[in-house]
Amino acid sequence: MRIDGTHYRAIWMEEDPGLVKVIDQRLLPFEFRILELRSMTDAFDAIAGMAVRGAPLIGATAAFGLYLAAFRSDPEHWCKEVEAAAEKLLSARPTAVNLRYAVELLMEKVICAGSRESMIKELFHLSIRFAEDEVIRCKRIGEHGVELIREIHEQSSRPVRILTHCNAGWLACIDYGTALAPIYLAHDQGIPVHVWVDETRPRNQGARLTAYELGKHGVPYTVIVDNAGGHLMQLGEVDLVIVGSDRTTRTGDVANKIGTYMKALAAKDNRIPFYVALPSTTIDFELADGRQIEIENRDIEEITHMEGLNEETREINNVRILPEGSTAINPGFDVTPAGLITGFITERGICEASEAGIKSLFDK
Amino acid sequence: MRIDGTHYRAIWMEEDPGLVKVIDQRLLPFEFRILELRSMTDAFDAIAGMAVRGAPLIGATAAFGLYLAAFRSDPEHWCKEVEAAAEKLLSARPTAVNLRYAVELLMEKVICAGSRESMIKELFHLSIRFAEDEVIRCKRIGEHGVELIREIHEQSSRPVRILTHCNAGWLACIDYGTALAPIYLAHDQGIPVHVWVDETRPRNQGARLTAYELGKHGVPYTVIVDNAGGHLMQLGEVDLVIVGSDRTTRTGDVANKIGTYMKALAAKDNRIPFYVALPSTTIDFELADGRQIEIENRDIEEITHMEGLNEETREINNVRILPEGSTAINPGFDVTPAGLITGFITERGICEASEAGIKSLFDK
Repeated sequence: MRIDGTHYRAIWMEEDPGLVKVIDQRLLPFEFRILELRSMTDAFDAIAGMAVRGAPLIGATAAFGLYLAAFRSDPEHWCKEVEAAAEKLLSARPTAVNLRYAVELLMEKVICAGSRESMIKELFHLSIRFAEDEVIRCKRIGEHGVELIREIHEQSSRPVRILTHCNAGWLACIDYGTALAPIYLAHDQGIPVHVWVDETRPRNQGARLTAYELGKHGVPYTVIVDNAGGHLMQLGEVDLVIVGSDRTTRTGDVANKIGTYMKALAAKDNRIPFYVALPSTTIDFELADGRQIEIENRDIEEITHMEGLNEETREINNVRILPEGSTAINPGFDVTPAGLITGFITERGICEASEAGIKSLFDK
Repeated sequence: MRIDGTHYRAIWMEEDPGLVKVIDQRLLPFEFRILELRSMTDAFDAIAGMAVRGAPLIGATAAFGLYLAAFRSDPEHWCKEVEAAAEKLLSARPTAVNLRYAVELLMEKVICAGSRESMIKELFHLSIRFAEDEVIRCKRIGEHGVELIREIHEQSSRPVRILTHCNAGWLACIDYGTALAPIYLAHDQGIPVHVWVDETRPRNQGARLTAYELGKHGVPYTVIVDNAGGHLMQLGEVDLVIVGSDRTTRTGDVANKIGTYMKALAAKDNRIPFYVALPSTTIDFELADGRQIEIENRDIEEITHMEGLNEETREINNVRILPEGSTAINPGFDVTPAGLITGFITERGICEASEAGIKSLFDK
């Protein structure tokens, strides 16, 4: 997607075969800075330090990190070095499923009895391919989802007002995004849209990243606090809700950013379609009940403190917003039961949020 | 209620008949500072500048402000001065219903044909009485509401876990509060309680004020982001929800801080009792439908910026948390339909959230 007219992805390579570039997302929206990854350690630091975030982007960064480890490896001990790099990368974000998936996918091709050169070549192509596959899945989600938006527009002849929660956009997904892919495609096809962007406390991914990427691509949006969505739905100001998914059970329950569940309740109460955009990679075919999904409790500093731009000094400051000594808890996700979800937008099409619906598209 | 063991109200007088004291709520929870009001202008500034907030406290501050205008008035032109003071005070927060109520109540006693001294005496007693009436109403709300908490405790033999939104505590209401009154009484009577405090974006009255006053009084609490309440309810971690009301229709719809509606939906979905604590002064007997209540849109700087304590400089800083040029909208309240509300806790007892319920206690 575009930033001030230039097309970017969240991770890319140019001519130099030893250089991978990413956008440093820690500084957004206050500063746009490109981070250069020249080694596995650079990739590790980018993942562990959250310069890159979002499951698909973490996976791709790990894949490129493994490639860089091979590219820089000692001709004598290359195999040991690449194996050590894989271990190290896996520890960067221990709970990130895509990271493990990417590293294991690439490590299958590392055959110590083979040649270093063919391995480097293989890992290069696999990394590029890994990122490309994510982009294709997202684009397809967009192509299926845009039809929902087109339909609403054709019925109403007004801009389609879509509410989204958190950041399920191209910054998390290399390009297009999941929940935002249909919105970008609608905008690019000339279907007028207006996005209600949930701030998404506590990490403010909506206010910081979704607002940034929509604004830079030219998509009209308005930021609201997480408390306001239900009220806008009551007023008839929301035509459609689209959110992402971190993990989906085979029965259609969705674990997504904390707060998603209450938006789904409000959508149901006001008869507003509530869609979840998800690549099939988020479906956990082992799980039958969303209540079995373990929800991580994150650092309470995300609640006790807030990061923002000091407009006098132009520095990014972290200020305390709770009384000293306050306790807090910070669950990162909640589970929206399938019964509250109108449907899934996947790379293979749109289906009901149910075991039958998922099976109709992804019968293994 | 208590701050570090000392009993405070949000507004009070000591021996000096020309001095009214309030807590400067703009600095909480970072700094505790008492503001001295010696004139009508001081009272006006405290209201307009939001050193005091909360409908009952605004009303009481206006009442004391009018008294101070009389107390300091010129013996020659006292009546004109008091009349001008009334006009001025009314303009401090144009939409505050309690402010108008307080000023009009006191002005009925200002009879220009009478004596200045008797008027001063009258306004003194009326101001004291006005504040005292608010405190009594809140205390009664507490006495009725504590029985709900006691009942849950007797059934469960565990601490009663209560979720609240915004600040409907003693800082807003001179003493006890509305939603917090039953909680304070339970705690003081030895019934174990634990309060889930919604942060309450965008002004963070939960994180700043509710957390402060509960902590200082010694009531156990945990701050959560507004997104987290539904998840805690799904997990069975909430026994009871109590919120306040800014305006109540005669049919039982409640306009309260933005976000209340989605908490009510989540409570209903999880079969958790959802009570609104309200003094009868918030009931608008003219209104039959909550959708008729006009919702004010507040300054978007409450969304684009965030105030907090810079722990290095110990200064209160205001930082920008949205991309430059972002648009936002900021509705201050939402309407929870009566059907989502288990009951009202009023100064006269507990009733159903319906026209019949209200009539059973307040038949005019």
